[in-house]
Amino acid sequence: MELFRRASKVIPGGIYGHASPAAGLPNAFPYYAERAKGCKYWDVDGREYLDFMCGYGTISLGYGHPAVEEAAAKQREKGSIFNHPSALMPELAETLTELIEFADWAVFGKNGSDMTTWAVQVAREFTGRKKILKIQGAYHGVDPWCTPGSGGIIEEDVAHIHPFPWNDLEAFQTLVARYRGEVAALIITPFHHPSFGDSEMPEEDFFQQIEKVCRKEEILLILDDIRAGFRLALEGSHTYFGFEPDIACYCKALGNGYNISATLGREYLRVSATKVFLTGSYWNDAVSMAASLICLREMQSAKLPSHLEKLGRKLIKGIGNEALGHGFKMRFSGPPAMPFMRFADEKNFFQLQRFCALAATEGVFLHPHHNWFLSAAHTAIDIDHAIEAASRAFALLAKEQ
Amino acid sequence: MELFRRASKVIPGGIYGHASPAAGLPNAFPYYAERAKGCKYWDVDGREYLDFMCGYGTISLGYGHPAVEEAAAKQREKGSIFNHPSALMPELAETLTELIEFADWAVFGKNGSDMTTWAVQVAREFTGRKKILKIQGAYHGVDPWCTPGSGGIIEEDVAHIHPFPWNDLEAFQTLVARYRGEVAALIITPFHHPSFGDSEMPEEDFFQQIEKVCRKEEILLILDDIRAGFRLALEGSHTYFGFEPDIACYCKALGNGYNISATLGREYLRVSATKVFLTGSYWNDAVSMAASLICLREMQSAKLPSHLEKLGRKLIKGIGNEALGHGFKMRFSGPPAMPFMRFADEKNFFQLQRFCALAATEGVFLHPHHNWFLSAAHTAIDIDHAIEAASRAFALLAKEQ
Repeated sequence: MELFRRASKVIPGGIYGHASPAAGLPNAFPYYAERAKGCKYWDVDGREYLDFMCGYGTISLGYGHPAVEEAAAKQREKGSIFNHPSALMPELAETLTELIEFADWAVFGKNGSDMTTWAVQVAREFTGRKKILKIQGAYHGVDPWCTPGSGGIIEEDVAHIHPFPWNDLEAFQTLVARYRGEVAALIITPFHHPSFGDSEMPEEDFFQQIEKVCRKEEILLILDDIRAGFRLALEGSHTYFGFEPDIACYCKALGNGYNISATLGREYLRVSATKVFLTGSYWNDAVSMAASLICLREMQSAKLPSHLEKLGRKLIKGIGNEALGHGFKMRFSGPPAMPFMRFADEKNFFQLQRFCALAATEGVFLHPHHNWFLSAAHTAIDIDHAIEAASRAFALLAKEQ
Repeated sequence: MELFRRASKVIPGGIYGHASPAAGLPNAFPYYAERAKGCKYWDVDGREYLDFMCGYGTISLGYGHPAVEEAAAKQREKGSIFNHPSALMPELAETLTELIEFADWAVFGKNGSDMTTWAVQVAREFTGRKKILKIQGAYHGVDPWCTPGSGGIIEEDVAHIHPFPWNDLEAFQTLVARYRGEVAALIITPFHHPSFGDSEMPEEDFFQQIEKVCRKEEILLILDDIRAGFRLALEGSHTYFGFEPDIACYCKALGNGYNISATLGREYLRVSATKVFLTGSYWNDAVSMAASLICLREMQSAKLPSHLEKLGRKLIKGIGNEALGHGFKMRFSGPPAMPFMRFADEKNFFQLQRFCALAATEGVFLHPHHNWFLSAAHTAIDIDHAIEAASRAFALLAKEQ
């Protein structure tokens, strides 16, 4: 709190963005992290937390994973930022295009937004069309065309961005018909994971219908796999749901905390891709690419998606049962590997915030309005501990009522 | 070349963006870097280069600077990406707002573009106005409103972006008069450093007149100090030229290769700053902030700006003399710390590309269409070596004619 008071003097809001305590757990700690290892972290007051956010998904193998750190350290001896790429860049592009079958090429950036914004430009360049369809409430980054905020946004930023509700094929087809011949792309996440709202899985045949219409109308299908990528399927989340995008953007899980994002695309977009300027001083960073290469290998040997699904199922079943035992009913949504939890009858998030604050005092960090993340470092025993802590938090919450 | 052929299969263009050899030194090596140390680097074929690009400016102290690496390693033991910021974030904000006097607060990102785009949004939010003035040909990043490329750009992206020529106060005042009450901000670099063109310094009184008009018309003055920051003056390049911005963006030199960017602003913009959504999964990265804190301290003890100016003067004087000795005349522009060189009589860049290719074979990396960068790791002896290598390259060039 002392740090937050200091920060509030020199940083607007003290802490901003996704880590803002005001939006997450207001007046409940942790606010500042001190260190992390595996699936645990410690705040600046020395309190330990069993973590279910994994650096908002960037930690796929566990904090400070030995093999990734070793590869990064080895590359760091040689250097990270040069005037040129390193040999790791073609190697990483080869690895990714082999793993993710639909893709013929790859490019790299730093933020998820770097990639979604560029992908939208490539689609506009390729099609010569302006309009972009997206899902209502879907998060694709902070750039003006897609930011969830309204501050500083002008009407021109979103003049050709047209949202429709998740799973609403009729609304999608209405937009396609209204703007026939004007739509460059649909950008979509593999499942709907808004903040402050239940996750929604695609209905039977949703993506197949989407894909069919896109092919027919020559609308590019951009998969924003930044949040879910490598957690549902190592070969790309589209393989989990049975469709094929034209372009896909990845980030989070790709580097186990080392800063990298990637866009993969099909052969026929290659020329358009070279026409949309893409660069950043740090984007050829060899250390992140070394980390990413090992991270991909380790996610494969850990069989990450099935590991996360198994532990996720155990977690939501256990927490759900403990809730019932204390007179609460929880609703879980989204894939078990990235679950979203709320109180079944609560329309706002106040009780959930209180529960998560109590869970934090019991040593488990659970987020009240964002899907959770697990990692390869979590074990069945960690899940048991989390369920026990949640049980104690439910007991405290029941007492407060 | 073998790597480039491999890369060309899986990466559009093989190498893209600022590092593209097609734009820089086509068919002349180096294409891929292997390692770097101090002011030198080695390509994948083992050739050594004395470097005058410093990772396009990101390397301010020298590659692999011991104190920065030590601080980064120490923080890395604790962790880099967490669910929350670390205590280093308020510390870095305090350090920067103390050093850069006009500023009352700071926020952090990863790319330069993250910051310039956000600053433009803050200006729009604060003023409720749409229009942004900028300098013709000035580089502010790759986002659609400012990218130098045209691929994938639609008219709405730049509908309210109005360029005028550097040093042209009349054109500036004409735009201000035409759009009176509609201009949110002027975004401007401290000197004009286009690619493929001479650098231009501000004319006597240019910034003072700019500042006066901005204050009178309530137009925010955004300083894009991403490229020049900390190299001309540690207290911000505006102090070098005697004016005060409302917002300033920094990046490159700030972390000696550790990926960080920052925006600093005045008190009265604080509320607007909290209203423009700003976030990224990696933006609270504690390792980059640890590196940045030490980098700032080391730039101060190295008296970086005067060191760079002294060596830069020596470099351009030496190369200029060697050119004359071989029958060539060079034109240098920009501050000596970040010089831009071209053949005095050449309208295109072909001879310059050839010269830089020959200089590379002689062991010095000089860029043919971008300003150069020096670092604290360069010594007077390095400059002597560079001048000797340039002399040999001029001799080879003279023979070819």
